[in-house]
Amino acid sequence: MLEHKKFLGDVLPFWDRLNPGEQEMLAAGTVTRHYRQGENVHGGENDCAGVVVVKSGGLRSYILSEDGREITLYRLFSGDICIMSASCVINSITFDVHIDAEIDSELVIINNEVFAKLAEENVYVENFSLKEAAGRFSDVMWTIEQILFMSMDKRLAGFLLDEAARTKSDSIPLTHDQIARYIGSAREVVSRMLRYFVGEGLVEQYRGGVKIVDKKRLRTMV
Amino acid sequence: MLEHKKFLGDVLPFWDRLNPGEQEMLAAGTVTRHYRQGENVHGGENDCAGVVVVKSGGLRSYILSEDGREITLYRLFSGDICIMSASCVINSITFDVHIDAEIDSELVIINNEVFAKLAEENVYVENFSLKEAAGRFSDVMWTIEQILFMSMDKRLAGFLLDEAARTKSDSIPLTHDQIARYIGSAREVVSRMLRYFVGEGLVEQYRGGVKIVDKKRLRTMV
Repeated sequence: MLEHKKFLGDVLPFWDRLNPGEQEMLAAGTVTRHYRQGENVHGGENDCAGVVVVKSGGLRSYILSEDGREITLYRLFSGDICIMSASCVINSITFDVHIDAEIDSELVIINNEVFAKLAEENVYVENFSLKEAAGRFSDVMWTIEQILFMSMDKRLAGFLLDEAARTKSDSIPLTHDQIARYIGSAREVVSRMLRYFVGEGLVEQYRGGVKIVDKKRLRTMV
Repeated sequence: MLEHKKFLGDVLPFWDRLNPGEQEMLAAGTVTRHYRQGENVHGGENDCAGVVVVKSGGLRSYILSEDGREITLYRLFSGDICIMSASCVINSITFDVHIDAEIDSELVIINNEVFAKLAEENVYVENFSLKEAAGRFSDVMWTIEQILFMSMDKRLAGFLLDEAARTKSDSIPLTHDQIARYIGSAREVVSRMLRYFVGEGLVEQYRGGVKIVDKKRLRTMV
């Protein structure tokens, strides 16, 4: 609990706006949990997980398309806060997303009801949750514009470059199926486009992944 | 200005949280303007119009692709407040939308800079703007899901009718999971669509199955 207090004090911008009683309540309503790669954190059968802080690992938020494909909305990394997993306690949010652990993750989770009570009492807590939601709104709009407006080759090129930048490696250890899920497409479409990229000398394929070989030309596509 | 004060006091939930000086400032920064059908209110050449209250008429919010395709995000009617037209003063909103008058409209517009100053001074004003943004987030997610899940309702309706014809019974003894597999979708998607069908009075659900109650209307969907 003392450990949670220290951690929450560091990551929550409204911590200093809470009185000692509210700080106690928040820390007492917080748990640390580990999730394995691929495990569902929120949505589906795990409704309203609570406010999630990623201590280590990574999460992926998505919705399901008509034929069961997953459309990735945004991703969360170490230090990020996920408010959409507590959307049930925000009246102005009337939809739900799915959130999975993308890799093994350690999460600090603030209980829903505790958070809801604080947000009701303290306008700065409510303000924080709404600000986080507005940030996700921006992420989602970006994604939606990619999906609706950008042609497939640009999206795939952009995704590969983003991944390479994020992981600081030109080798992207993801299958066609995984890439398809991230960019909201179908595996067949990704496979076909990657074959085209290989033919153009932009990337090479290896078992279980893709390697960028001409980053400069890939950049000109985006 | 006195007229604006009265109007703003009626429509803005944070009005009573403002001190007299802030109320004066807000009213002084407010104008009434008329827009003709089809006229652009915000986005494109009319950047950051301000906070818009629809006094009469109707607005349409949309995004625009490079090649001119429009996707309508949501609509606003008399009494509605549009915060996205002041998105430039909300830090957590990093995208922009277009807003047009869909019919001849009378709009009460609060100046951006005045609103930004108030939101900075008064947490309740900021709270209001974020809450409005979260509401639009919900609208947009609904729209996006319609776009992505569009043909799902047709496929599910067709499947249920086919099964009823095949088995000569309006009761279809299949679980959501089984139906999802038959039509190549995910269980969650089928569950959500069936809830929608139930709400529309098209089917009823029973333990382990679905019963068609309005075959005629179900047929019109396919």
